Amino acid sequence: MAATSAPPASAHANGNGSHAGMAAQVGPPTNPMATALLTDQYQFSMAYAYWKAGKHADRAVFDLYFRKNPFGGEFTVFAGLEECIKFIANFKFTEHDISFLQSVMPMCEGAFFDYLREVDCSDVEVYSIPEGSVVFPKVPLMRVEGPVAVVQLLETPFVNLINYASLVTTNAARHRHVAGKSKVLLEFGLRRAQGPDGAISASKYCFMGGFDATSNVLAGNLFGIPLRGTHSHAFVSSYMSLDEIPDKALRSKDGSRVCQDFVSLVQEWLKKIQEADSLGAFGDSNQSELAAFASYALAFPSNFLALVDTYDVMRSGIPNFCAVALALHDLGYKASGIRLDSGDLAYLSIEARKVFRAVEKEFNVPGFGKMVITASNDLNEETIDALNKQGHEVDAFGIGTYLVTCYSQAALGCVFKLVEINSRPRIKLSEDVAKVSIPCKKRCFRLYGKEGYPLVDIMIRESEPSPKAGERILCRHPFIESKRAYVVPQHVEELLQCYWPGRSDEPRAELPSLDKIRSRCMQQLEKLRPDHIRRLNPTPYKVSVSAKLYDFIHRLWLNEAPVGELQ
Amino acid sequence: MAATSAPPASAHANGNGSHAGMAAQVGPPTNPMATALLTDQYQFSMAYAYWKAGKHADRAVFDLYFRKNPFGGEFTVFAGLEECIKFIANFKFTEHDISFLQSVMPMCEGAFFDYLREVDCSDVEVYSIPEGSVVFPKVPLMRVEGPVAVVQLLETPFVNLINYASLVTTNAARHRHVAGKSKVLLEFGLRRAQGPDGAISASKYCFMGGFDATSNVLAGNLFGIPLRGTHSHAFVSSYMSLDEIPDKALRSKDGSRVCQDFVSLVQEWLKKIQEADSLGAFGDSNQSELAAFASYALAFPSNFLALVDTYDVMRSGIPNFCAVALALHDLGYKASGIRLDSGDLAYLSIEARKVFRAVEKEFNVPGFGKMVITASNDLNEETIDALNKQGHEVDAFGIGTYLVTCYSQAALGCVFKLVEINSRPRIKLSEDVAKVSIPCKKRCFRLYGKEGYPLVDIMIRESEPSPKAGERILCRHPFIESKRAYVVPQHVEELLQCYWPGRSDEPRAELPSLDKIRSRCMQQLEKLRPDHIRRLNPTPYKVSVSAKLYDFIHRLWLNEAPVGELQ
Repeated sequence: MAATSAPPASAHANGNGSHAGMAAQVGPPTNPMATALLTDQYQFSMAYAYWKAGKHADRAVFDLYFRKNPFGGEFTVFAGLEECIKFIANFKFTEHDISFLQSVMPMCEGAFFDYLREVDCSDVEVYSIPEGSVVFPKVPLMRVEGPVAVVQLLETPFVNLINYASLVTTNAARHRHVAGKSKVLLEFGLRRAQGPDGAISASKYCFMGGFDATSNVLAGNLFGIPLRGTHSHAFVSSYMSLDEIPDKALRSKDGSRVCQDFVSLVQEWLKKIQEADSLGAFGDSNQSELAAFASYALAFPSNFLALVDTYDVMRSGIPNFCAVALALHDLGYKASGIRLDSGDLAYLSIEARKVFRAVEKEFNVPGFGKMVITASNDLNEETIDALNKQGHEVDAFGIGTYLVTCYSQAALGCVFKLVEINSRPRIKLSEDVAKVSIPCKKRCFRLYGKEGYPLVDIMIRESEPSPKAGERILCRHPFIESKRAYVVPQHVEELLQCYWPGRSDEPRAELPSLDKIRSRCMQQLEKLRPDHIRRLNPTPYKVSVSAKLYDFIHRLWLNEAPVGELQ
Repeated sequence: MAATSAPPASAHANGNGSHAGMAAQVGPPTNPMATALLTDQYQFSMAYAYWKAGKHADRAVFDLYFRKNPFGGEFTVFAGLEECIKFIANFKFTEHDISFLQSVMPMCEGAFFDYLREVDCSDVEVYSIPEGSVVFPKVPLMRVEGPVAVVQLLETPFVNLINYASLVTTNAARHRHVAGKSKVLLEFGLRRAQGPDGAISASKYCFMGGFDATSNVLAGNLFGIPLRGTHSHAFVSSYMSLDEIPDKALRSKDGSRVCQDFVSLVQEWLKKIQEADSLGAFGDSNQSELAAFASYALAFPSNFLALVDTYDVMRSGIPNFCAVALALHDLGYKASGIRLDSGDLAYLSIEARKVFRAVEKEFNVPGFGKMVITASNDLNEETIDALNKQGHEVDAFGIGTYLVTCYSQAALGCVFKLVEINSRPRIKLSEDVAKVSIPCKKRCFRLYGKEGYPLVDIMIRESEPSPKAGERILCRHPFIESKRAYVVPQHVEELLQCYWPGRSDEPRAELPSLDKIRSRCMQQLEKLRPDHIRRLNPTPYKVSVSAKLYDFIHRLWLNEAPVGELQ
């Protein structure tokens, strides 16, 4: 991983306090624009109203959760935690921020801005499910506790940093699932993403969700993600003829000899290919394309990968590629493969594979038939699934637009709801039951069954004893009375861990490396019962509350809801 | 507008050269992550292959354009130009960048990195349609000319900076169109946008496309966009009773007197409202909500706007709001209005309006009936259209998720195609005619008819004379032979202007302020013939080429396309 940049201007000046110390440890947010001003105006209006009423330090607990899995699926991968922790570690208003706020809120008393000057997150506690975990609706992904005015200011940036991160990680995981473990997945989304850090986050989180590499050089630099990329159509069409290659010499891979005219060698091979009956008698290929390939091979003899669809894949791109690859082979190099970026990818990959196998046999080049075929061009879950059903010979998929913009569902609806204030539980009602919040400061557990699969998540009140392996526990649907089941878990995992202890003595869970988070994600998906993860009609995973919490919710609900009057 | 921050680290050190001078004039990109590394890996592979072949300085011309208007419409608003110009003005590799590139491209010769160290955009020319213009498929939005290796490095960041900007500006313009000119449109998308600058760009470009304000404080700070926002459900549910308000005194607006117990005044008003027969005899309202409203009014007596749907809009939110608003009125303040965030917005807005009008009459409070009603909650073009059809009393719409993520179409497919190299035209063929590029360095014009509407855009070869007002010109469809028409324009507008002259003497068009770009956008949309902009079955706007360019395209096409052989 590349080193992160210098500490942010907003970090605390006094380097010894525990808060400043933590800020230094976790580093600044990836995007320098993620500052304390990156929030909704109403968070400041509310902060002022709380402050005026002397309520700003009231101790509030908020849950961050979502209500529905995206993409018609029954699972979500939680991502964005590290950025949230970096955000709060560096949360501080600069004098520039304060003057701006004063200018837009001239009706507020000056002392309020003095209060804002002192605000940081040293009194905030963040408990969270580890990043890269598989998560489900209604269960808090994060529980944020602290002075109500401060925690409200965190609402918008937290939801912003979690929503897209979790959405695109889940999208990547879904693409990995449909492509299968053996395929190489490349994220090519930079140009179509929603702005520079739409792209940079996409690269990070697609890697987390199971992609192998990205085309985004800055993401490679920031996160150490492997980079991939060869050339474009413009490169091919920028060549006119073979005469444009001034230096035609190429030293053999072992350094023992120099081929003075690599271009002629390529032309000789092209002739042999065109004349070989076993290859189906190719006609004339495009010479500007041949020039581009030869030129590219001279620059990258050990990494020759050619885009073969600029003119005509089967009539021009494939024979030209084979000619250059065979010439490279003469000099001890092994070509990497081709990329297809248009047309019928199933058909073209199968036809290309046939040619590669025939070349292997005709010219006795072991391994040529296994040449890597990369496909790109508006791929997504559905098109990969369709390719699988048709049969194809693609080894690697380059996926852009649909992956990074989450085209089939461009937003995840994470919310941030008040569940307790000054130790008094709060509930948010709604005519839509799915929108009623689950009150109280809670602890959350995942219960595993005999076969090692997770069976159910359960939320309990903080004061209740934890579920224990081997002990029977009643799990209730939070809202539907008739849905309940006894479970005897084989293994119990507490979901919320302390990532930001504020002033408490709780030890802080470490923020793992991106590679470790990626492994966690892969393992968690592996552990999930297959019917929860399948594309068609997946089974919903069960999310429950303890009997005590169930009773409490429903008492509070009845208390708060007005009795209607039908007219 | 707020001042921009300090000049970027990557700006040229020598402050007197014209390139460095321009960098200083235009300032750094809004997002500090938009650096020279923000590009695809293959742009560097190609740069190396060009360099190895001695082709890197070949003079290339690329067109940036899109092929299809988004959202099923027939127009697009072009945005993102200023960020592109800022990008190239600051385009330079740091030593950190170079070391990183060396580490990921160890097979490249050292001299290549010396070349990269020297690369900047002083030899690049950018011609562009002005930002905020209405634009159409196939017509170049930008024409970028320069050394092929450098211009290729710009492809990815340019497309990234234009794609989402133009998409979301167009989305905003569509929302403005459906809402009508008289409504207030508020962008509330920060929490659901695709990352921090997905949100920051959205705020900028939604304002450009016709929105009035944003909730995003940082965007307000960066771009001077008006800010809006009041309070959330959490604020309401954080209150338990009226006893929680310690300081109940409120000075009247004119400063002449102090009401020592504003809360009692509110309670008196609530009683009057509940007892008034003309208001339909309200029952008991929620007291924690009343406390939250009273507390908020004490903090913002001149800006009292309440979210009224936490418990029950008509039974609790509206009477509570009216009580506080009437108490404020007693002290000379005018309440701002309410926000509805759930339920049937058409019905609730109409019912709320009835109550406001009845209050105006019952208590003789002129203007109370005109109280501003803001609606939010998953709004988009379709729901606003549906509200319009049902009838509603909403004055302002707060729009988030669907607006900023461009949910109905999350990407615009801008491409960047080579059209000429070393003065030789290039064409990119495709089996899909819509994907064939229009070759040659071109000039583009918009021809206006008698009624002032634009009639057609026309592309001509650079060497051709410009179309002139009053002179008949043949406009041909670029690909379909039978589609052509003579036009006698009343007025001719050249579309591509010089925004980055490189080393040429061309004067540089100014980058206007955001307010000016917004006005341009509004004017351009105003000028468009209504059938091009309507939501249902809009008429496509015509895009054409000159007779000369038509002939040239088709000659080149025939030359390059292989003759097929049916088997």
